[in-house]
Formats: sequence, structure tokens, C-alpha cells
Amino acid sequence: MSDLTPKSFFGSIFRLITAKPAIPPSLEGNTHLKTILERRSVRKFKPDPIGPDHWAAILEAGRVAPSTVNLQTWSFAEFTAPQWREFFGQPLPFEAARGIVILADTHRMNRAVPALPRAPLCEYTIGVMNASLAAMNMTCAAEALGIASVMLSETGRTGFYDAAHLKTKLELPDGVVPIMSIVFGWPDVGAQAMPPKLPLEAVTFTGAYKETPAAMLDAWYDQMQAGYLVSQKGQSFESKIKYYARRIDDAERDLWGMVLPE
Amino acid sequence: MSDLTPKSFFGSIFRLITAKPAIPPSLEGNTHLKTILERRSVRKFKPDPIGPDHWAAILEAGRVAPSTVNLQTWSFAEFTAPQWREFFGQPLPFEAARGIVILADTHRMNRAVPALPRAPLCEYTIGVMNASLAAMNMTCAAEALGIASVMLSETGRTGFYDAAHLKTKLELPDGVVPIMSIVFGWPDVGAQAMPPKLPLEAVTFTGAYKETPAAMLDAWYDQMQAGYLVSQKGQSFESKIKYYARRIDDAERDLWGMVLPE
Repeated sequence: MSDLTPKSFFGSIFRLITAKPAIPPSLEGNTHLKTILERRSVRKFKPDPIGPDHWAAILEAGRVAPSTVNLQTWSFAEFTAPQWREFFGQPLPFEAARGIVILADTHRMNRAVPALPRAPLCEYTIGVMNASLAAMNMTCAAEALGIASVMLSETGRTGFYDAAHLKTKLELPDGVVPIMSIVFGWPDVGAQAMPPKLPLEAVTFTGAYKETPAAMLDAWYDQMQAGYLVSQKGQSFESKIKYYARRIDDAERDLWGMVLPE
Repeated sequence: MSDLTPKSFFGSIFRLITAKPAIPPSLEGNTHLKTILERRSVRKFKPDPIGPDHWAAILEAGRVAPSTVNLQTWSFAEFTAPQWREFFGQPLPFEAARGIVILADTHRMNRAVPALPRAPLCEYTIGVMNASLAAMNMTCAAEALGIASVMLSETGRTGFYDAAHLKTKLELPDGVVPIMSIVFGWPDVGAQAMPPKLPLEAVTFTGAYKETPAAMLDAWYDQMQAGYLVSQKGQSFESKIKYYARRIDDAERDLWGMVLPE
């Protein structure tokens, strides 16, 4: 939104580098809480595989996630790196060890509970919501094991931006919509700066809705620009937004066709 | 789907009582993993409040959750029990200590990044997905602190089934859709049976989509029926499904109006 001046650039970089999740001092000894709050998306992995026990525990976290009326409206297309390469004809993103395409799946629910009337947008909401809960629970279980991950919703034919492509590729019946992929591996990174997060007061309120002050949005935007300039080597935040903008009409049309047929 | 015979009733009860999350023996010493896999939705809480540090840590887990292009498409309407009672005119469900209405919020994103073209169904997908990731991350952080919770998407005017009511009540601008409430408190329960979960092979596959065998769906349905008969005192699973079926047309119309205007 705002233009990045040298002053706002350096200020933004400083804020990016110094940002940390807020852990109340009284709870600093809780290593489990720390693991959750300090989780970071990781895009560089060691070549080591993820063994069957670790993988089973991660999938189990998806299986036992909470869901609306316990309807479990999800499916997980799961792959080792060689399986992914063979199936998709390209390597797992970021040379990760394992990958899952997360599917919002109300097809199974409609088979199991035929008394539920059809309501496409409610079903889609339930599907996306529950599948996302499962995705985050798997990610948290992975963190507990020291395994890092990144969720991909938008590039490399891995998420809802490529729903139609994945529907064909995975032979998905109606009612099954890919929403993201998660790739997992043993992390091969040092300390990483947090992506710029809005302050808590920008996203919380009590009672009626509170608009986020424009200054907070501008500061966030400046940090996104500065962060891309420093870390993405030549790709600006604007160019990423333009990339989405170019593709969003197709994605929107594909999703309508899959979610709200005829 | 199937009728519950005495044999399938007792078989289902046995399966319900003996079901446990599968934790590989090699990972049993990982208490963090155990906490995640053994998490259960809790509907009975001690009267003790949740203090400000614990609450701040839970909200922080929402703030630092992952999101599509770091767009943080969520807002959290958060209440103590007295604030909830005053605002909604009824007590927090299950006499919990704190509650959050989870909002899929693309209104803020559209203010912050006006270059993103409008695409209502893509935006809604991003909103529901990211807000659900934040919801699960908050729930996991709460578990790390010993604080239990339950997600409510459908009753007591707490979730997307009551989106239009909550839009009015919370004065939500277009682009902000309530998807669920989570209520939190210190658990006041002993060991709880797991709700019936489909086996891992019913929800995972590698390569092309695999239909869940009908026998697995029937076994799940029998367990849902048996579980309701035993635990819900007079309310059957069928009656719950009928309750949803009666309300789903209204919910569908409300959601269309909020998500896909004109």
C-alpha cells in the first residue's frame, strides 16, 4: 500500500529481525507451549527420511482431530518423496521427505449420513474448516517430534489454486476439494526471522467488531515488502501479489465448478 | 444408515470404550506428542477462571498461526464468562471460563492489499482455512497449559450455522464470517471415551482417491448411534441429524448472502 522509503525499509527490517512470539515470563518453562508458539514454516530440509513411526504419529494427529459432529470431513493423499516424484512427475517441493495433499471431503460424509440434505456452501465450509483443523494438528504433532513443515496453498500445483488440476490428477469425486499441501522433513535451518504478524490488538476485540487501524496495516505492508526484498532475492511482495492476481479468476472459476455445481 | 441390533450395539460400545489414539511404542515417551494425540473435546469445566498470562498465551497461538501468504485472515472476538453473559445475554456454553468467536476475516486483507482482485469463493476459502488453522493452534496451546476446550460450530448461536445472527450481533463488515466458537476452561472430567474415529486406512491413500469401504462407514455409524444412546440421555444421533437437516436451508441461504453477495 505505502511506498517503501529508506527510513521505513530499515525500520521494517529492524522490526522483522527483533520480532518474537510473546511468551508470558510465568509460562516460559513450558517447553510444550514454546514449541507451539515458536513453530516456523520451514523450506529447507535435511535429506534424511521420516521413518514409519514418526509418519504414523503425524497422520494419527489428523485422524483424531476435532470435527463438526465428528463427521471427519477430510482425506489425506500422502506420499514419500519418491512416490510424489513418480505420481506428480516432479520432486516434492523444497526437497521435503514426505508430503500430504489435504482434501476437504464431504463425499464420504454424504455416503455415511444420507439423511443430511445437500447444502453446497455449508458442506464446503464444514469440509474446509475440519480439514484445516486436521492440517494444523498434524503440523503440531510434527513439531512435537522435531519435524518441520510448510503449508502450500498456492504454487506448484499443490493447493486450492490448483484444485481443478488436482481433482483430475487424484481422480477426486464431487465433494472432495484439495485445499493445501503440507510437506514435512527434518529442518536444515538456523534461527529464522518471523514473518510480520499483526499485533494482538489488531486481530482481537471484545463485543462489536473493531477495525484494525490503518497505521498497523501500513506497518505490516512495509514489513512484508522489506522482508521480500531481503529474503526472496529479486521477487518483490508486489510481484507475488501480481502473480496471484493474474491467476485468481481461473482459480475462482475452478472452485465454483467444484464447490457449487450447476 | 444401518439399524442398530443388540449385537451391533454391544459391539459398538465395546469398540468405543476400547478405542485409543495409536501412539507408536517408540514414541510413547514424547509427552508433547501424547498431549496432542490424547486431546479430547471437553464440555465440563471447573469454576476457576483462566488468568491473563494463560489467556494471552492462547491468543498468541492464534496470532502466530500460519496463513496463506501470511495474510492472517482471521479475527478473534474474545470474552470472559461475565463479558459473554453481558454481551450475548446468556452464559458461556458449558459454563466455560473464556470464549472466542472465530472469524474468517478477509475484510482486513482487502484493506491492506487492495491490489488483490475480488474473488469471493477464493477469499472465503482462504478465510475459513486460515481461521481454522488459528483455532487449532490455540486449542493445542491451551492443551499445553492443561486448559481444555470444545469447538462449537452449530448450536447455541455460536458458529457458521448462526452466521447471520452473529454478523448482526458483532456488527461484522462484509468479508467477515463467523465459523465457530471455542470455549475454554480447566477440565472437570475423568477419562472420556474417544468419539468413533474412522480407521487411518479409511481416510488416507497414496495416488488416486480411494473410496472408504461401506462396511467401515456402517461400523462408524453404528458407533455414533450407540455412543449417543449411552452418553446423550435421550437424544439420538438421528435426532441430531434431523435437527441439522431442519436448519440447514436457512444456514445455506445466510451463508450465500454473506459469502457470495448479489
